[in-house]
Amino acid sequence: MFKATLKSDVLKSIVNAISPISDEIKFSITPDGMAMRAVDPTHIAMIGLDVNRTAFDSFEADESEVGLELDKVRDILKLAASGESISMEQDSERGKLIFKLGNITRRMNLLDTSSINAPKVPNLELKATIVVPAQELQRGIKASGDISDHITLSAEGESFEVACAGDTDSVSLVLDKASLVSINAPEPVRSAFTIDYFSNLIKAVPSDSNVTIGLDTDKPVKVSFGLADGNGVVRYLLAPRIED
Amino acid sequence: MFKATLKSDVLKSIVNAISPISDEIKFSITPDGMAMRAVDPTHIAMIGLDVNRTAFDSFEADESEVGLELDKVRDILKLAASGESISMEQDSERGKLIFKLGNITRRMNLLDTSSINAPKVPNLELKATIVVPAQELQRGIKASGDISDHITLSAEGESFEVACAGDTDSVSLVLDKASLVSINAPEPVRSAFTIDYFSNLIKAVPSDSNVTIGLDTDKPVKVSFGLADGNGVVRYLLAPRIED
Amino acid sequence: MFKATLKSDVLKSIVNAISPISDEIKFSITPDGMAMRAVDPTHIAMIGLDVNRTAFDSFEADESEVGLELDKVRDILKLAASGESISMEQDSERGKLIFKLGNITRRMNLLDTSSINAPKVPNLELKATIVVPAQELQRGIKASGDISDHITLSAEGESFEVACAGDTDSVSLVLDKASLVSINAPEPVRSAFTIDYFSNLIKAVPSDSNVTIGLDTDKPVKVSFGLADGNGVVRYLLAPRIED
Repeated sequence: MFKATLKSDVLKSIVNAISPISDEIKFSITPDGMAMRAVDPTHIAMIGLDVNRTAFDSFEADESEVGLELDKVRDILKLAASGESISMEQDSERGKLIFKLGNITRRMNLLDTSSINAPKVPNLELKATIVVPAQELQRGIKASGDISDHITLSAEGESFEVACAGDTDSVSLVLDKASLVSINAPEPVRSAFTIDYFSNLIKAVPSDSNVTIGLDTDKPVKVSFGLADGNGVVRYLLAPRIED
Repeated sequence: MFKATLKSDVLKSIVNAISPISDEIKFSITPDGMAMRAVDPTHIAMIGLDVNRTAFDSFEADESEVGLELDKVRDILKLAASGESISMEQDSERGKLIFKLGNITRRMNLLDTSSINAPKVPNLELKATIVVPAQELQRGIKASGDISDHITLSAEGESFEVACAGDTDSVSLVLDKASLVSINAPEPVRSAFTIDYFSNLIKAVPSDSNVTIGLDTDKPVKVSFGLADGNGVVRYLLAPRIED
Repeated sequence: MFKATLKSDVLKSIVNAISPISDEIKFSITPDGMAMRAVDPTHIAMIGLDVNRTAFDSFEADESEVGLELDKVRDILKLAASGESISMEQDSERGKLIFKLGNITRRMNLLDTSSINAPKVPNLELKATIVVPAQELQRGIKASGDISDHITLSAEGESFEVACAGDTDSVSLVLDKASLVSINAPEPVRSAFTIDYFSNLIKAVPSDSNVTIGLDTDKPVKVSFGLADGNGVVRYLLAPRIED
């Protein structure tokens, strides 16, 4: 059993966070909330998403699994005004999830969850932790444009840098203590990533939020941020690229 | 002779209403106003449009016929600010319609009206009449998206339903007395329509207006709404689809 | 040496003015400001652009030449908020121009200026001078749409006309003294131009500014307007088209 009501904006932030990783997803539902884990088709990026029942206006559930196509949920969100309530109810017998929005009822076929893998998201220990306003990162990514196909993140002391160097041109975003929320880099760290992947993850972050970056030399980067006024959390892991 | 001035918004609402049905149109003009009838190329949808002279800021006309390409009128509307005056004057000798907008004069070739058919729009007696806010219908149509290629309208008692069912998923919009302006359905009626046609007609309705739906079992649906503060009226007829 | 700071809006107005003519450009820099001359690839249109040092928030320069790809500067402008400061500094040793915008540093390869021609923009004496609000001209151009591939400019007495005539349809914009800022046409003048070229030049003018048109019979038209609150000036020359 699963039955819940939430604001369209909360559902939208959940869908946006998952979008860069996967389209066919499986939510694991408990009486306390819902969670999902997925790896992207190339196995380079992972997501762990946890939403507490407090993010919902109402929430009643047993242990359950719900498999969904994200594209269809996005279609529902296109109908919803900001702040509008959306209700969801599982019809286990018919294998449907029933969405209600105003006078509209949308019955959506549930996916067979046995075919959807939910990987374990490893709990990496990374040496540096940097908390950055999402907007700064997003502007740095946008500036990197077509200059190169990879991007280098590095932290040292009280400075965090996003750099992108091509054959002739280069861009760097250098954030010092004044532009960061916080930084803890006990030793210099540096790792490079495919720009398309990193860019897609960073674009999915709500631009008014802070992003926590976990960074270590030639290790995956961990990008995490809050959802639904802190009632949910998203963690991405992105594998590093071998630098020449 | 035909010479008139009207607000760009009124001309726009006329053009928008005709757009789903036809591009080459013939207006029949009398001293009292103008009218047009057209059937779409597949003969599935019809329009009857009548605009009273009171919809215009000034209007002088004998009996006349004016053949126009809607695309060209749309180009003029793209130039006009909301609330701006547009004047039209027929130059019968040269076969032109002369539009004036601010300092711009646009001379447009008139079409030969003898080749443009104006069908009779039949005056059908349909058992149920439902008056719906256009916005509700438009949201229901948008929600139906890619689910199926047809849509079913039905009315029973004080409830009106727009339903769209595909192989696995379905959408329904159910409007009861509280969401409707009015409903009169002395017996249950139900008819199905190709979604693309119905959708195009409903999208052409100004979203802040009310739509009157005439419905009967396996009969055409009649969709009508007012233009120019009630100084004009549009009636669409759409042929039903044979349900399996 | 060249080092300057300016508002993003000023840089944008410079880039927009050059865009219709050329993508690879050469700025000639002196202690007093910067200038550029270019001819479009078909040699039908020319630009002369002069920006005084007073258009900048700070400006330090020797005699210098800076070759740039406009597309890359446009990418930087996409990052900038309105009113945001952008600094530029030439790194002659490495052949780069270094842009700074907030926490972002963008190192851009300079082009070899020896391969970029800067033509002399001839100082034509044209009989008529008309000063027109850019918005009026832009609306006239937009109205001309697909009617014909050329446009005729003419002035006579206190009236200025932009006309476009196709086989069946025509558009004219007639501006009299009341709609013009000023007109001086001691004798009737008239010249025709390829609409695409003229349209691209007029679209590049900031729509809240006045455009000075220099016109003479079967001679090039001169289109000039101010930039950066009068601290810069753009002059276009467009060759006439032979009328049948």
